[in-house]
Amino acid sequence: MNYKVLISAATLTALPVAGLAQEAEIIPVNAEIGFIFTTFMFLVTGFLVFWMAAGFTMLEAGLVRQKNTAMQLMKNMALFSFAAIAYYLIGYNLMYPGDNWTITGVLGAFGPAVLEPVGLAGMEPDLTYASVGSDFFFQLMFCATTASIVSGALAERIKLWPFLFFVIVLTAVIYPIQASWKWGGGFLDTSYGFLDFAGSTVVHSVGGWAALAGALILGPRLGKYSKDGRVTPFPGSNLPLATLGTFILWLGWFGFNGGSQLYMDSAANVADISRIFANTNTAAAGGAISAMILSQLMYKKPDLTMVLNGALAGLVSITAEPLTPSLGAATLIGAVGGGIVVFAVPFLDRLKIDDVVGAIPVHLFAGVWGTLAVLLTNSDATLGGQVLPILIVGVFVFVVSAVIWMALKLTVGIRVDEESEINGLDISELGMEAYPEFSLS
Amino acid sequence: MNYKVLISAATLTALPVAGLAQEAEIIPVNAEIGFIFTTFMFLVTGFLVFWMAAGFTMLEAGLVRQKNTAMQLMKNMALFSFAAIAYYLIGYNLMYPGDNWTITGVLGAFGPAVLEPVGLAGMEPDLTYASVGSDFFFQLMFCATTASIVSGALAERIKLWPFLFFVIVLTAVIYPIQASWKWGGGFLDTSYGFLDFAGSTVVHSVGGWAALAGALILGPRLGKYSKDGRVTPFPGSNLPLATLGTFILWLGWFGFNGGSQLYMDSAANVADISRIFANTNTAAAGGAISAMILSQLMYKKPDLTMVLNGALAGLVSITAEPLTPSLGAATLIGAVGGGIVVFAVPFLDRLKIDDVVGAIPVHLFAGVWGTLAVLLTNSDATLGGQVLPILIVGVFVFVVSAVIWMALKLTVGIRVDEESEINGLDISELGMEAYPEFSLS
Amino acid sequence: MNYKVLISAATLTALPVAGLAQEAEIIPVNAEIGFIFTTFMFLVTGFLVFWMAAGFTMLEAGLVRQKNTAMQLMKNMALFSFAAIAYYLIGYNLMYPGDNWTITGVLGAFGPAVLEPVGLAGMEPDLTYASVGSDFFFQLMFCATTASIVSGALAERIKLWPFLFFVIVLTAVIYPIQASWKWGGGFLDTSYGFLDFAGSTVVHSVGGWAALAGALILGPRLGKYSKDGRVTPFPGSNLPLATLGTFILWLGWFGFNGGSQLYMDSAANVADISRIFANTNTAAAGGAISAMILSQLMYKKPDLTMVLNGALAGLVSITAEPLTPSLGAATLIGAVGGGIVVFAVPFLDRLKIDDVVGAIPVHLFAGVWGTLAVLLTNSDATLGGQVLPILIVGVFVFVVSAVIWMALKLTVGIRVDEESEINGLDISELGMEAYPEFSLS
Repeated sequence: MNYKVLISAATLTALPVAGLAQEAEIIPVNAEIGFIFTTFMFLVTGFLVFWMAAGFTMLEAGLVRQKNTAMQLMKNMALFSFAAIAYYLIGYNLMYPGDNWTITGVLGAFGPAVLEPVGLAGMEPDLTYASVGSDFFFQLMFCATTASIVSGALAERIKLWPFLFFVIVLTAVIYPIQASWKWGGGFLDTSYGFLDFAGSTVVHSVGGWAALAGALILGPRLGKYSKDGRVTPFPGSNLPLATLGTFILWLGWFGFNGGSQLYMDSAANVADISRIFANTNTAAAGGAISAMILSQLMYKKPDLTMVLNGALAGLVSITAEPLTPSLGAATLIGAVGGGIVVFAVPFLDRLKIDDVVGAIPVHLFAGVWGTLAVLLTNSDATLGGQVLPILIVGVFVFVVSAVIWMALKLTVGIRVDEESEINGLDISELGMEAYPEFSLS
Repeated sequence: MNYKVLISAATLTALPVAGLAQEAEIIPVNAEIGFIFTTFMFLVTGFLVFWMAAGFTMLEAGLVRQKNTAMQLMKNMALFSFAAIAYYLIGYNLMYPGDNWTITGVLGAFGPAVLEPVGLAGMEPDLTYASVGSDFFFQLMFCATTASIVSGALAERIKLWPFLFFVIVLTAVIYPIQASWKWGGGFLDTSYGFLDFAGSTVVHSVGGWAALAGALILGPRLGKYSKDGRVTPFPGSNLPLATLGTFILWLGWFGFNGGSQLYMDSAANVADISRIFANTNTAAAGGAISAMILSQLMYKKPDLTMVLNGALAGLVSITAEPLTPSLGAATLIGAVGGGIVVFAVPFLDRLKIDDVVGAIPVHLFAGVWGTLAVLLTNSDATLGGQVLPILIVGVFVFVVSAVIWMALKLTVGIRVDEESEINGLDISELGMEAYPEFSLS
Repeated sequence: MNYKVLISAATLTALPVAGLAQEAEIIPVNAEIGFIFTTFMFLVTGFLVFWMAAGFTMLEAGLVRQKNTAMQLMKNMALFSFAAIAYYLIGYNLMYPGDNWTITGVLGAFGPAVLEPVGLAGMEPDLTYASVGSDFFFQLMFCATTASIVSGALAERIKLWPFLFFVIVLTAVIYPIQASWKWGGGFLDTSYGFLDFAGSTVVHSVGGWAALAGALILGPRLGKYSKDGRVTPFPGSNLPLATLGTFILWLGWFGFNGGSQLYMDSAANVADISRIFANTNTAAAGGAISAMILSQLMYKKPDLTMVLNGALAGLVSITAEPLTPSLGAATLIGAVGGGIVVFAVPFLDRLKIDDVVGAIPVHLFAGVWGTLAVLLTNSDATLGGQVLPILIVGVFVFVVSAVIWMALKLTVGIRVDEESEINGLDISELGMEAYPEFSLS
């Protein structure tokens, strides 16, 4: 989502692809055609990012234990729905205030999103390069992604409604404010030269920080960590679902990164989107392969869950800069991300931080790595311009999230009682089962 | 699918988005470029609507009991396939007769669909704004959706082949004839000024009426309603599948409503499609949230199945008019739809109408609500112009469906025998199991 | 993926769709706009083909026994990832050498794929009609499909790492070399006039031949064929997953066949893509229905697995020529494909060739049929021009694959030991279970 200088009409006319149409008079892509291209691109990439909500849902439903599956489905359906309303009512204008900052570069505008009038012919659209509706639709999906990241880490023990309250705060306020600092043209963009193309930091690390704060305050699941330091694995109950979720996320990521080019009104822009698709794909492959080989080497057997998370970490890693790397560099950036997962999952366990699906390694650790990796392939990036924003965003999100989680803990409580946790949240909190007819071993 | 007046080239030229390309000469979107845009839009939105067939399949497979799952998969695969052939051979020209009405405005043309010749360069296409193939592809998916709605309501007891016979009649004749009245330019369009943008009535209520007729004639599942008025819940056997199906449908609905704009050849049209995407999404969110809150209030625990159906009811509710509402209005229209589901599901149970997946509340009741809700945001709608077509379509579909169901019942029979129903349709009718290795509790 | 003559600008200008924009000056689709259209089309159809990787994964995970499910998930995740790297490092330039053939028309170029520079404004792109990145992305997905076909046939008994070694050879060398013969402009294209639009032979039969060689050398699963000639059915453990996989593949096939038009820069091309979408859909429907009716007639009960494979066989059958058939012809071509499956599955069992998911009937037999069926609707096809390439590709792929499989068998071994096979590959090879909490019957 970098702001890119529009290629002038003159440049376009000079494009030698002209050879194609033989003698045809070369006409630049005009403003309206470019508007249609870019808007439609936002809609297509936006529905791909929407689809990631289903991916997170399947991934998490597959990785929790059977007795908490229906609750995980409920949380994901509900978080997306509440995020959609919260971002519409508050988040969008906080994130993209235009000229209406409440505090310039720091705090955006208040008020619900308003789309352009129906059939805007003859009226000037609010955005010159795409419709506001397509931009809102696309950006909403990024905001919802942040909340999806949190739900996996805190699964199997958090209460439904307090979790959803946090989701509302996250998607109405926390995510949009920090996103405005970079993508809304705020101080991280103008003063730091921070580069984060599609959100390794702005989306993924934010979800990760919020999840980390929650995991620390919520505490681990009963029985996960014994006093003598043993870690009890709680294997995912349905690995085909988890694998399906990973494929869905992989697919959705083409939209996540590709749409963040923000323009498809020229050959140069669509070629860049193509590079992004190819790089995104190869980074995921690199992450999966490195997690597979490393888990084979370390544990003698490759670990499917590590491979799934490795692919996702590869995707997170390439998200801060999916455009400038070559295919080889993108593969390696993704492979490092996959490796991070293999080492970070047991590392968190040693710290007794219980992250049910590995969301913190995948989204926070690989997100930080990806943001730093911009330095390797994009000469516009500076060390300070990457590191300081990582820290600023991290401190902001972690502290605000921790305050909210603590406030919830001290008032309504955020954790189900022991008996409910042991019996499973499905029966105790929802009174239903995800697989009522299948008997358990 | 409203017939929209094409924006004239003059208007386009005047569009102030011109500022974008600086000094570039402004060229209107020419006819061929518009043709490509609109045709490709039909293909993309059409494949999204195709994907809804998978959504219904997963939703229904997740909501039936384990012993009827393979049959539900079979019915969905088969109904889509038969619908595709029936619509090709008969339905398409019945629905879109052009100037060849058999009875003007009431009964379309007979004969199979014929697509345009390969590589139509130098030949005039049958449609001036998009290719016939893309239109056929897109419209076929709507027709198949109607049949998918029926299969869920009648699950767990209907015989396979009689069900498929009904599907053929529905998709070859019933759906296309009534659809021609509105979308083919028939009497509901020309004489009543009926507004139904993407088919709350024309698609969803039609599926609902056909399902209602079937459910009444078929009768409830064994053991569902006891003589003393108790209702035995038969919980869905695989809620992750049902949730996946809901997400698939939600995704597909962007194509369902968005593609119904029918044109993407101008900035105004693509901006309208964007609004539709955003409104469709927020209506689903509204429906999910209202069903969640209402089920929490009424039953002390939120009900996942209600939330899934609430989201779907929100989608059905916004389908008659996804363009003119603001985001706030769309959210509320969807929320009312979600509320309808929460009240209508027990209401149908009181009437001993056994609808396995809640298809009648979601598609018929919310479809009627959505069609009436057009009055709230579109000043072109009239009370009579909405209510009378709802009734006309309802009576036509219900009566014709009931006649077919009765004829089938009296001849080949439509219901499996008691022993088969008790043992499950998978073993008795198909001789296979959906999950042969998993033991049941 | 036929090389098509570009429609000249003059033809475009003459297109009578001009009537649409009334008095507007008609401008041909210029080179840059065509470049954007075609490139974006590759990205959209490419992500649909990517999605087929998830389809194969779900199909195979649903059709293997419960104890081998996690391994099948692992194999599919890993094969796609390795294919992505192998095709990038070696395959792409072997397949599309341009003017750099190592042996003209037979052996392509060596070296990794290099995408165009970022923001190619002012520079000439390597392809004049679309970006190299989009072409690479699209073609990679076809290569990966070939490997997906193999994994299903050899499931439940092959070792993970030797299988992946074969995948690397297949996707780096075997597939690209034979694909270059047709789609890279090699001798099958120039000397034989071979027509294979989207790869009934080049993709599907290739996967099928490689699977057949593997199945013969690997041998059947323990207990599948008794000495007295009885065949023990091993029913798929999760038919909803298999059905979901089939729907995913069906959806992805619109991209597979539609994108193979290779151009979307004119009304004629987009209309052709539309025909392809419609024909692809109807062929799948035809295949599903014929398999359903035939299995009903032959076994008194329709067989869901046959219906799923029938739909897939219909899709494979139309892949060699999805453009020239009418809807009726496409339906029949698909129906024959569906029939092939019903007869070929027991035929392979009689030969004691153990193909777990039916990949050889679906992809090899229906692939050959589809390639021959080009003769029925495309007058440019010749009997020799279709038959000889089928044989040449078949012999090449089968022999090279057999050599690799034999070499692997004689060195590292390709088959797990008996105990591992009996206990299931999940526990013995991966140390994990796909459904650890569900008890088995």
